[in-house]
Amino acid sequence: MKPLSIRPLSRTDFSPFGDVIELDEAKSFAINGGKCIRYHDLAKVETSGPEARTLVSLLRGEPYEIPLKLTMVERHPFGSQAFIPLTENSFLVVVAPDEGGRPGEPIALETAPGQGVNIARNVWHGILTPLHSVSDFVVIDRGGSGSNLEEYFFNMPYLVSYA
Amino acid sequence: MKPLSIRPLSRTDFSPFGDVIELDEAKSFAINGGKCIRYHDLAKVETSGPEARTLVSLLRGEPYEIPLKLTMVERHPFGSQAFIPLTENSFLVVVAPDEGGRPGEPIALETAPGQGVNIARNVWHGILTPLHSVSDFVVIDRGGSGSNLEEYFFNMPYLVSYA
Repeated sequence: MKPLSIRPLSRTDFSPFGDVIELDEAKSFAINGGKCIRYHDLAKVETSGPEARTLVSLLRGEPYEIPLKLTMVERHPFGSQAFIPLTENSFLVVVAPDEGGRPGEPIALETAPGQGVNIARNVWHGILTPLHSVSDFVVIDRGGSGSNLEEYFFNMPYLVSYA
Repeated sequence: MKPLSIRPLSRTDFSPFGDVIELDEAKSFAINGGKCIRYHDLAKVETSGPEARTLVSLLRGEPYEIPLKLTMVERHPFGSQAFIPLTENSFLVVVAPDEGGRPGEPIALETAPGQGVNIARNVWHGILTPLHSVSDFVVIDRGGSGSNLEEYFFNMPYLVSYA
């Protein structure tokens, strides 16, 4: 297996692949007579293709152990996919650039408590990978008809670790 | 002031006004090789009007005290508005039927931990009202141009309480 080291999620690293969803002071303003702060418009929601609409769903995921064998990534040609954690547990976000219709070298990022991500339309990514314990998420993605899933299995899997 | 009693949020009471967003077993299925349960498509996201798009934002709200004076409700003619709590704190949801362009008698509902709501397009509702302590929320609503806010001030306010 090829080694792949986990590093902390940052907006700089993640910007080619989508949005980090967090309490970003630069996008904040007060509402409701000052009783509430709105951190506004943190994710570019993309829905395209036949009968496209925005879905709001919840996920409850079992945790994965690190080191982790990464055999596959997937992408969604018709829509973005946002994951916002409902617990303080971190989760692993694997994304990869596209190289002529196939994923290039992936990167592995671990969220800090309170960070979510929005994976842009057609960006290669790993499946949802909660860490530490069972974790709930809000997911905002695309519904509709048509084929919205493409999978790619690596010839040689990656071993994702903190090394 | 007119008295208005708080009751627990239920799907039955809320169905004329939108969706309760919660871990609904009837809408669940397993994904990712059984490691994750998806509670699918829990809210009807509505975005209409000029340059309409779906926004994902975070809110951090200060709590309100009960009894509470309700002087105003509002509605959004171009879009729905979903609030999903990121804490276990409950919040108060006030909604009212429309009666010829004005709100009728409001109802006051308190969420259980883990419950969110999606307020349907053009439904009269109170502002976000966290209870107990400072509370964070995911909000999914509508961006775009045009006037998407209508407010109504009651001639006689309501006193919202547990009585």
